[in-house]
This record gives sequence, C-alpha cells and structure tokens, in this order.
Amino acid sequence: MKTYLDCIPCFMAQTLRAGQVATDDEHKIKELLDEVGSKIREIPMTCTPPETGEFIYRLVREVTGVEDPYREIKKKSIREVLSLLPRLRDMVKSSEDRLLAAIRLATIGNVLDFGIQRRYDLMEEIGKMEHMQYAIFHYDSFRERLAQTDSVLFIGDNAGESVFDRLLAEELGRPVTYVVREVPVINDATREDAIESGLHEVATIVSSGSTAPGTILRLCTGEFLEMYRDSGMVISKGQGNYEGLSESDRQVFFLLRAKCPIIARDIGVNVNDFVLLDSSLSGHHP
Amino acid sequence: MKTYLDCIPCFMAQTLRAGQVATDDEHKIKELLDEVGSKIREIPMTCTPPETGEFIYRLVREVTGVEDPYREIKKKSIREVLSLLPRLRDMVKSSEDRLLAAIRLATIGNVLDFGIQRRYDLMEEIGKMEHMQYAIFHYDSFRERLAQTDSVLFIGDNAGESVFDRLLAEELGRPVTYVVREVPVINDATREDAIESGLHEVATIVSSGSTAPGTILRLCTGEFLEMYRDSGMVISKGQGNYEGLSESDRQVFFLLRAKCPIIARDIGVNVNDFVLLDSSLSGHHP
Repeated sequence: MKTYLDCIPCFMAQTLRAGQVATDDEHKIKELLDEVGSKIREIPMTCTPPETGEFIYRLVREVTGVEDPYREIKKKSIREVLSLLPRLRDMVKSSEDRLLAAIRLATIGNVLDFGIQRRYDLMEEIGKMEHMQYAIFHYDSFRERLAQTDSVLFIGDNAGESVFDRLLAEELGRPVTYVVREVPVINDATREDAIESGLHEVATIVSSGSTAPGTILRLCTGEFLEMYRDSGMVISKGQGNYEGLSESDRQVFFLLRAKCPIIARDIGVNVNDFVLLDSSLSGHHP
Repeated sequence: MKTYLDCIPCFMAQTLRAGQVATDDEHKIKELLDEVGSKIREIPMTCTPPETGEFIYRLVREVTGVEDPYREIKKKSIREVLSLLPRLRDMVKSSEDRLLAAIRLATIGNVLDFGIQRRYDLMEEIGKMEHMQYAIFHYDSFRERLAQTDSVLFIGDNAGESVFDRLLAEELGRPVTYVVREVPVINDATREDAIESGLHEVATIVSSGSTAPGTILRLCTGEFLEMYRDSGMVISKGQGNYEGLSESDRQVFFLLRAKCPIIARDIGVNVNDFVLLDSSLSGHHP
C-alpha cells in the first residue's frame, strides 16, 4: 500500500506516542518531532507507510537510547493472553470447525494493540466469537490452499497476538514457520516475544530481517525472500504486514482487523471490520 | 496557552484538512505538509498554538491561491443559523432569565465548527438547553461585571456561531464592540461574516488585526489593544481566543465548549465540557 496524505499527520502522532513511551524528556520528544517533520519532504508517496515507520522507530531508539520501549507492555500482553490459553485451546478443541475457531481467535488477537486492551474487553470479544462477521472472508480458498500445501509461512504481527497465532499454528496441521521482526519496533513480536508466547513449541521461528513495523521486502533477508517466494501458503497477520505486502505478486492470506481508516479504504472495508483476504481473489493482486 | 507536544501532530492534521478544503491538488497539499513539517523545529513551545495556526493558514492561502477556502462553508453555516434566529430569539425572550438563556445559546453556538454540524444536531443541542451543565460557570461574576460596565468588548470566534453571539449582544444591554479576525482563517468570523450574521445591527464591528485563528495580542492593532486594555468587560468566545488570551493580565470571560483535549486539560475540564470562566477567579490569572 502506498503512503496516503492522511498518513503524514499520523506519522507525527506515532512519533509522539513512541517518544512518550520511551522517555519523559520533553526535549528529546520535541527533537524526535522536529526530525520526523523535517524528513516529510523526503518521503516518496510511493513508499509503503511502514518504511517511514522504520525511520521513526529507529530514530526513537537512537535519540532516547531505549532499545525496546514497548518491552514491558509486550511482556504484560503476552502474560495476559498466556493465562487465557488453556481456556482458548478448549474453545478450539470443542468447536465443530476447529480451523474456523482458530482463525476467529487469531483475528480477535489482532484487536490487541499497544497492549492497552484490557483482559475484560478481550474476554468480551472472545465471548462474541460465534457471531463474528467478516467483511471479507475467503475461508474456502484458505482451506483449499491449506489442503494442498505441505508447509505454511505465517507472518506474525504484535506481541500478545502471537499467543493467539500459536493456537492457529497448532490447527494448521502442517509444519509452520513463524516470522518475526528483526528488531523491536512498536509492540511487534520479535524472536524473544515469539518464544515467550510458546511459538517455538509449534513452529520454527525466523526473522524476516525487516526492521520496519511491517514486512518490507526490500528490507528482508535473502533467506526470508526465498521462503516467501517458495512457500506453498503465506498467512500475513495485521495492518503493517498488509501495508508492506498488499502489492506483492504472490498469493497471501491477509488476516486482520482494519483499525486504520486509510488501510480500511485501501482494502475496501470499514474501520473495525474483520478481514480474511486471499490476495489472489482481490483486485490487489497484479 | 503554550504549545504542548500534542499540538504538533495536530498542526499537521490541520494543514491536511485546510489543504483539502482549499484544493484537490495532492501535490500542493503534500507541499503544504512538507513546509509545515520542516518548520516544526522552529516552533518555540512558549508560543501559543494559534501563532503556528497563523503560519499554516497563511501558507495554505499562498500555496493554493485560495484566499478564503471556508467561504461557502461559512456562508452556509450563517444561513442555517439565521433561519433559526426568530425561534431562538423567542426562546430568549420567553425565558425567566434572559441573559442566562442567551449565554447558553452562545455556548451552544460554539459547538458549531467547520460548518459540519447539521441543523438537526443543532436543534437537538438547543432542545436540551434547559439541562445544560457547565463544568465552570462564573455566571454571578459575569452578571456583576456586566452591571458595572458601560460597554462590552465581545471577541467572536466562528462564522455561524456569530449569529448566536448576536442574540447575546442584544441581551447585554450595553454598547457592544464585536471583534472579528483581520483575514479569513479557517471558519473564523471576519467583518463580512459578522455583517452577514447581522451583528452590525446590534454592535460595532472591529477587527482585532489578528490574522491567526485566535486573538494573538502581538498581532493585534494598536487600536484594538487600547480597547482590550480599557474595556470594562471582555467576553472571549471559543478555543482559539482562549489559547491566545489565557495568560493575559486582564480579566476575561471565556465562553466556550472544550473540544480539544489539550485545551480542556489546560482549563482543567473534560473534553466536550461547557465553560464560562472568569479568568480573574482562576489560577490562570497572573
């Protein structure tokens, strides 16, 4: 997805938020805003938004000296969801369609953002799971592809959400490679977060090499690019990965809640809609 | 009020919005965002936010060549409220406390912003007028001051809202000078808008000289500064004027709805709260 004009004030808002999480020093935060502001002229609108995100969160690390500002938030989020795991696993196991239940839970997991969702709200979302309506739901296509593949490349998004992803990985019935970010960026799952979520028990964890809050292919390792090209099935969680991969020329199953109005419009859904999108069935696929 | 860090992303959002109202040319809007972004480093946090607003809206006029992007929106807003005027005047006249009713209506008028409030919503607000609760309501002090003064300086805010101000001007029972902006800036009332609202029938209209979306004393004319200093009573409508005058060393009656979370926090109220604040009774007065 390209950068829209509306993304630009949002870059500044993200800078402010990330700065405030990393430090109390208002001068440093102002310095971050100054620096990002002065770089706006250089942002090509053809770039994807997470490419600018990469710049922003790297700058936050450099200026504040805090390597992983969301560390505690991520840990807390993972702990909360882990405490629910046995209950969630029972829900999946007792479902008539276990794969469907795991997909629904993995979508609800994407509601978790910045670790601010409270346990109560999360349980409320989960309680309404049976009635979940997707604005786009390419489930048949998802099942068909899964039946034909002998492995799955599963690109993760946030920490905490990663625990839900573990349940889906368990239900795929194929060897799963779970993809994390190379460095801490916002609350996105790194290798450490994936391990804390227990994903190493059900999948091989690899870093895409991306240091952006999304999968930006030009930032990825050769090893990842090969897996991405050759894998029989790719599942991509969340908005950041959608932004990076929506114009990629291979089939990707995007699983997300559209939280940003610009991304929602790009997909063709409304804000807060749930989406399971087979890119090969959409106009997005070249 | 000083500039807070949270104001900075908002400056960018205002630039985008004003650019989109003035032109469909995405390149010109991007140019506006580039320019405002690159100026952030130069914004002293001791400045009031409307001083940056002055820069933004001047830039929009220069880059787009559109002198008054909100012209039609303002005209429509004034027309809508004028169509309600006889009804509103009856409401005031039939009230037990006419001054109170006129103050309430003038506060509701401040809900009008960007002309996007629909007539329906407006009538709904007006319908609930009897039950209006103010978070700060220095009405006794307002009445006392009014009884002692022989004229009132009334600093206007938005076009449309200006029609409500006319009703309050009628109820003050003193010669009123109604203050407008020197140039079109957002949907703020200019001399032309005040005349369309009929304010010339009940008040003397003067420009403060301010080209900002607020009353910034250093941008005002000597003539206005003299009136501001010497007037027996000053009423100031809306957020922009509050931002400019909140630290001024004279008594001002601020009448507004707190729409911005930063301004609300500065005043010490919640977002959407109604306020009639006598600055001499608050901690804001030096």
